[in-house]
Amino acid sequence: MPKNSLLNISKFVAPEVIFGLGALSQVGESAARLGIKKAFLVSDQGVMEAGWVEKALAFLKEVGIGSYVWYGLTTNPKDCEVAEGAGHYLASGCDGIVAVGGGSPIDVAKAIAILATNGGQIKDYEGVNKISSPLPPMVMVSSTGGSGADVSQFSMIVEKQRQVKMAIISKSLIPDIAIVDPSLLQTMSARLTAATGVDALSHAIEAYVSLAATPLTDVHALAAIRLISANLRESVACRTNLEAKSAMAMASLQAGLAFSNAILGATHAMTHQVDGLLDLHHGETNGILLPYVMEFNMISCGEKFVNIAEAMGVQTTGLGKWKAAERGIAAVRRLFRDIGIPERLSQVGMKEEHIQKLSLNALKDACLVTNPRDCSADEIEDLYRRAL
Amino acid sequence: MPKNSLLNISKFVAPEVIFGLGALSQVGESAARLGIKKAFLVSDQGVMEAGWVEKALAFLKEVGIGSYVWYGLTTNPKDCEVAEGAGHYLASGCDGIVAVGGGSPIDVAKAIAILATNGGQIKDYEGVNKISSPLPPMVMVSSTGGSGADVSQFSMIVEKQRQVKMAIISKSLIPDIAIVDPSLLQTMSARLTAATGVDALSHAIEAYVSLAATPLTDVHALAAIRLISANLRESVACRTNLEAKSAMAMASLQAGLAFSNAILGATHAMTHQVDGLLDLHHGETNGILLPYVMEFNMISCGEKFVNIAEAMGVQTTGLGKWKAAERGIAAVRRLFRDIGIPERLSQVGMKEEHIQKLSLNALKDACLVTNPRDCSADEIEDLYRRAL
Repeated sequence: MPKNSLLNISKFVAPEVIFGLGALSQVGESAARLGIKKAFLVSDQGVMEAGWVEKALAFLKEVGIGSYVWYGLTTNPKDCEVAEGAGHYLASGCDGIVAVGGGSPIDVAKAIAILATNGGQIKDYEGVNKISSPLPPMVMVSSTGGSGADVSQFSMIVEKQRQVKMAIISKSLIPDIAIVDPSLLQTMSARLTAATGVDALSHAIEAYVSLAATPLTDVHALAAIRLISANLRESVACRTNLEAKSAMAMASLQAGLAFSNAILGATHAMTHQVDGLLDLHHGETNGILLPYVMEFNMISCGEKFVNIAEAMGVQTTGLGKWKAAERGIAAVRRLFRDIGIPERLSQVGMKEEHIQKLSLNALKDACLVTNPRDCSADEIEDLYRRAL
Repeated sequence: MPKNSLLNISKFVAPEVIFGLGALSQVGESAARLGIKKAFLVSDQGVMEAGWVEKALAFLKEVGIGSYVWYGLTTNPKDCEVAEGAGHYLASGCDGIVAVGGGSPIDVAKAIAILATNGGQIKDYEGVNKISSPLPPMVMVSSTGGSGADVSQFSMIVEKQRQVKMAIISKSLIPDIAIVDPSLLQTMSARLTAATGVDALSHAIEAYVSLAATPLTDVHALAAIRLISANLRESVACRTNLEAKSAMAMASLQAGLAFSNAILGATHAMTHQVDGLLDLHHGETNGILLPYVMEFNMISCGEKFVNIAEAMGVQTTGLGKWKAAERGIAAVRRLFRDIGIPERLSQVGMKEEHIQKLSLNALKDACLVTNPRDCSADEIEDLYRRAL
C-alpha cells in the first residue's frame, strides 16, 4: 500500500447492501423500511421481458406498497428521457424510487430522483456536488454484473444536443439500499454478460490506480479483479452457471464500492465521449480502450500494476517489475479476446475524423482528474488513435 | 473464497467514514451536516487530558454548534453509567451525540442514544434488534486503534449486578459518520496501544473465520490482519511513528467493518465474561484467549487459517495445510509476546473457581453463534483452563 494514501483525509461511503441468490425478495421489506408507500419502478424493456419487474412488483405488493412502472429509456440514457421520467414521477403520486436493471435504468432512476426534489434540467447538475435538496428514498436492484451504479455516487446521462455523456457526482446519489441478486444475471445474453463484466474490470483497475485510491478502496478493487479474472469467462460461457454469476455480481459490487469512492481515470473519460457520440455499449468501448490506457499509465505506479498482474492470475515471481506489469496488461487483453470483445474502435464505427473532438471533450471529463498519469490533449488523441 | 458464502443472502452496512491525519477537523462540519445544533460530547478522563476534547469543541464551535461535555464512565462501561449519562443528555437540551475516545466512550454514547429516544433501561436492549425508535444523529471520533465501535453495530455494556458484559446489536447503532484520525493514537500509552491493537487483530481473525463471513467482510478482515502484523510492533515501540499509527487506525477501521457485518466468535464470547467479572482491558484478555481459540477452531476451516498465516507474514509455500495453519497461530503468539501481552489468565487475576460460571455465561453470548466450530460448555471450560 502506498504510504501516502494513509496520510491524506479521505471519505468512504457505501449504501446498505443486500447480496445473494434470491435477494430480490427483500425489495418489498427494503422499500417499506424506507417509508415508501408507492414506488416509482424504473426498468427497461429487456429486464421487463425477463420477468424480473413482475417479480419485484409482487414483492412490493406483498407488503402493501403500490407502484407505477416506467421504462421509457434507452442504452446510454438521454437527458430527454430523464425529463420525461421525472414528469411521470411527479404525476404518479409516488414517494420513492425502485430501479430494477443495469446501469441505464439505475442511472435514470437517480436522475429522476434529482429532478423530483430539486427541479430544473438534468444538465444543471453535471459535475460534482451540485445537488442541494435531499432525494426521495431509493432502492436499487442490479440486474447486470457490471455498472456498479447500484452502490455508486455517479449518474451518467447523455446530453443529446452536445453528444456528451455527463457525469453527475454526489453523495446524495448513493441509494439507500442496494440489492444484488445474482439470479438476475442469468437472463443476460452472452454479449451483455461480456460487456458488463468488462465494465466491472475497468472500474476495478481504474479505481485501483486512481489518484484518489485509499486502502479501503484498494481491497475492494483487487478483490474485484481477482473475481473477474477467475469467473468472467465461465459466466459468459454459460447462462446458468450460478457460481460464476454470483462471483461476477460480487465483483461488480466490489468494483462499484471502489470506484464510487476512488473515482476513475482516462479509460472512462475517453469512453464517455464515445458513448455520447456512437451510442455503443459502454462496457465494450471500455474494453477496447483499457489496455492502451494501462500501457500509458503503467509508469505512474509500477508496483500497483504488478499487483494487478497478480490479481489477474499472472505468476510474477522472478519477473522484474515492468515485465510483470506488462504481463498483467497482456492477461487483460487475453481475457477480453476470449470473451469476444472487439479489439479496435474502428470495428465499432469510430473514425479518425472523430478523434480531435472526442479528445477535447475527454479532457473536460470529471474522471480524468484522478488518472494517475497526466494527460495532454495530444496524448489522448494518440491513445484514441492507437485503439482505432 | 468459500463458494457457499456467495450463495446466501447477506447484508453489509457501514457508516460514512472520514479517515486521515487531521480528520478530527471534520467533526464540526459533520455534526452540522446531520443537523445537530447542540452536541452531547461523550469522552473519558484520559482523552480529555490528552486535549482532544478541547480541540473537538473548538471545531464544533467554529460552525456554531453548542455542546455539553460528559465523561462519567469507566473502562468496560457499566449500565449505571449509561443511565446517568442518559439523564444528562435529556436534561442538556442536546439534539445529537458526538463521542471522542476509544471503545468505552463510543459504546456508552451509543447506549445513551438508545435510552434518549427509546426510554427504559439499557438491559432491555440486550441481544439482537431490540431497538424500535430511531436514534439521535451520531458522529464518532475514534482515539484508539482497536475497538471498531466507531463503525460497528455493537454496543457492549456491563450489567453490574450480573457481572456480565451485554452485547447490544442493531443496525441503528451504526453511527452516521465515523471519523478516524490517526493523530489521536499518539497520546495512548504503549500498553493501551498494544491492547487495542490486539483487540483489532481479534476482531479481524474472528470475523474472517465467522460463519457469517462474506467476501465483502473477508477482504477487510485480511487487509486488517496484514496491516496489524506489519505495523503493531512499531506502533507500540514509538508514540510518534505516524506511519505505524495510520496503518493501525486503518487496520482497526477495516477490522471494525468486518466484524460489524460478520460478527465474532468464541474468543469474544469468552472475553466478554472475563470483562464483566474482573474489569480488565478487553484487548489483553482477547490476546490471551485468541491463540487457544484459534487452535480449537482450526479444523473447521483449514484453508482460511492458511490465509491468516499468509496475512501474518508466514511463508507457507511447501508447507502442508495444517502446518501452515499452525505457523499462523504461532505468528500471532509471537506478535503478542513481542508487545508484552500477558500469556495466561492467571496473570491477570482469573482463578479456576471462576471457570464454570464464566463458561455457562459464554455459552449464552451472542458472539458464540457465529463461531466456526460448535462449542459445548465442557469445551469452553477446557479452553479457559488451557489459558489459565
